[in-house]
Amino acid sequence: MSEPVERVVRHFQEELEQLKTRLLEMGGLAEENVRLAVKGLVDRDHDLIDRVLVGDEPVNSLHIELDSRCFTLLALYQPMAADLRTIVAVVKINTDLERVGDLAVNIAEAARRYASHAPIKKLIDIPRMASIAQTMLRDALDAFVRRDLALAQNVIIEDDRLDALKTQIFRELLTFMLQDPSTIEPALDLILVSRHLERIGDHATNIAEDVIFIVSARDVRHHAGEGA
Amino acid sequence: MSEPVERVVRHFQEELEQLKTRLLEMGGLAEENVRLAVKGLVDRDHDLIDRVLVGDEPVNSLHIELDSRCFTLLALYQPMAADLRTIVAVVKINTDLERVGDLAVNIAEAARRYASHAPIKKLIDIPRMASIAQTMLRDALDAFVRRDLALAQNVIIEDDRLDALKTQIFRELLTFMLQDPSTIEPALDLILVSRHLERIGDHATNIAEDVIFIVSARDVRHHAGEGA
Repeated sequence: MSEPVERVVRHFQEELEQLKTRLLEMGGLAEENVRLAVKGLVDRDHDLIDRVLVGDEPVNSLHIELDSRCFTLLALYQPMAADLRTIVAVVKINTDLERVGDLAVNIAEAARRYASHAPIKKLIDIPRMASIAQTMLRDALDAFVRRDLALAQNVIIEDDRLDALKTQIFRELLTFMLQDPSTIEPALDLILVSRHLERIGDHATNIAEDVIFIVSARDVRHHAGEGA
Repeated sequence: MSEPVERVVRHFQEELEQLKTRLLEMGGLAEENVRLAVKGLVDRDHDLIDRVLVGDEPVNSLHIELDSRCFTLLALYQPMAADLRTIVAVVKINTDLERVGDLAVNIAEAARRYASHAPIKKLIDIPRMASIAQTMLRDALDAFVRRDLALAQNVIIEDDRLDALKTQIFRELLTFMLQDPSTIEPALDLILVSRHLERIGDHATNIAEDVIFIVSARDVRHHAGEGA
């Protein structure tokens, strides 16, 4: 029954690589859903919006699959140190990516409502927020796979740009609402979309913090305001 | 160097109990912050609001402590089966509780802005939402500690009541905003509070789903609409 140690180690490393590959696939799907939802909002494209609304099944399947892979790896191989930290990080990142998938659906829901009203304005800052949030997500996952501290730190810095844009969008839309009550309902949906995008940035930030924890075994959370 | 097996097992069980105790403490703190934030909103109590705004340090410390305890338990004892599932669940629940703490702060931020305007209406549904969300959170953690499937399932059912109240609050506030633009800004803050409370319910639901997974080793996620 006993396997040579080298073979067990090789199996483990192969399965760890597969775990990372599947995590990247999930990240790619979640990011693509965000992109399509925002494109559906901007282009008022009902088909695209509907596709996102019914399209989160693959992300949800991967969520369950990845959790199960993590359990199997922990139970079968009882990994230590860096490998243990990596697998526990995948458990967390998996949760973050599943929420990003949910937020893409939330954006599509707001987009559907928004498309039922006359457009308020040309949307510029929301696609800009979406682009920043998507890049943050991609960079956070790249930083995870490449154990790239600098890239992870950059993701955390980018989050401030998202927050600034969210505040700017809110102020602008508030002005619209105060001037013309017929814009209240659609403006509320745009405000919600900006908050969903902000939360996608928060999830990317969580992932970046996990990367810093894995690579440096240092916990950077809850010290945001303390740095120089 | 080697310890008798019984002693190792006893240490592990003691540390697992401590882990659960600390998790419950964290849940209690997060829930209390939600209660205080909503009380601050309803009573327009600036002192209370300020207390919540600066008071999430204990929750954040526990977040880091619990993560570290989980790592130590996984690395030192390499637990199997039910114990492994419990510890991985704590990693996830820990994240949920930390977000609940953040949401209490978000509610306090909205409460501070709301208190700078004339009140729109007597707040009835928001305290009702808060009460449901707090109960869901407490029940989810009780269900975790007592491995109580029925209680966990009840938490998931309660989430529908939160969603219904959120929709009702939104419609009512929209009417206010359309009738009187001076209510737009404060109404937006109440809408945000209702969404923060909805998300607290979502976190309680996540915890309840983890409990069902631990107890029955069955994954109930992403099948919400499929049951009888």
